[in-house]
Amino acid sequence: MMKQVIIMRTDLKLSKGKTAAQACHASLESYKKADLQNIKTWEKEGVKKVILKVETEKELHELHSLVKQTSLPVSLIIDAGHTEIPSGTITCLGIGPGNDEEIDKITGHLKLLN
Amino acid sequence: MMKQVIIMRTDLKLSKGKTAAQACHASLESYKKADLQNIKTWEKEGVKKVILKVETEKELHELHSLVKQTSLPVSLIIDAGHTEIPSGTITCLGIGPGNDEEIDKITGHLKLLN
Repeated sequence: MMKQVIIMRTDLKLSKGKTAAQACHASLESYKKADLQNIKTWEKEGVKKVILKVETEKELHELHSLVKQTSLPVSLIIDAGHTEIPSGTITCLGIGPGNDEEIDKITGHLKLLN
Repeated sequence: MMKQVIIMRTDLKLSKGKTAAQACHASLESYKKADLQNIKTWEKEGVKKVILKVETEKELHELHSLVKQTSLPVSLIIDAGHTEIPSGTITCLGIGPGNDEEIDKITGHLKLLN
């Protein structure tokens, strides 16, 4: 199975709308870097997307470093800061679409964003 | 200016994570239908994404009908229902990337999702 994972910072206390907008940036930017064959498989399986959370920017950087050591597509999102938060704020990380188990090696310990 | 707009139903009372996942579906599916030249302009301008809200499924259908009368890319998202809501629930509508003013003719009266 394939999935895409978006990891959001909760310490920024973004609104639901702002959270969604940032997640969309991560989803799209990571998608654009994905392998075409993986995209096709992911689409056939139902474009699974999972939204996870971390509490700090540091955790996002650590996860980003780990993903960069793999061949998984990844996007670290830096907000332009028109609303809610200062420009240049790192808000979330998008990973995949990629293999479920490969992604879980890096993000399997994280909790769902509720 | 170009933008992409995602319109979420608030009556489903989705969590932040579920809202973000549904918005990502809408963003990506609408993106895939967009004209390449519009995508390039949108990217050059900073991939503006705006998250709006409606209170009912009926309003989403009405907006969807209006968008379908234009050449704007559009995606109505029907959730597979693995969590929180029954399978087949219509959760949101993605429009664009497309021209700001053309989109505003249809969605200009809607409020931001906070």
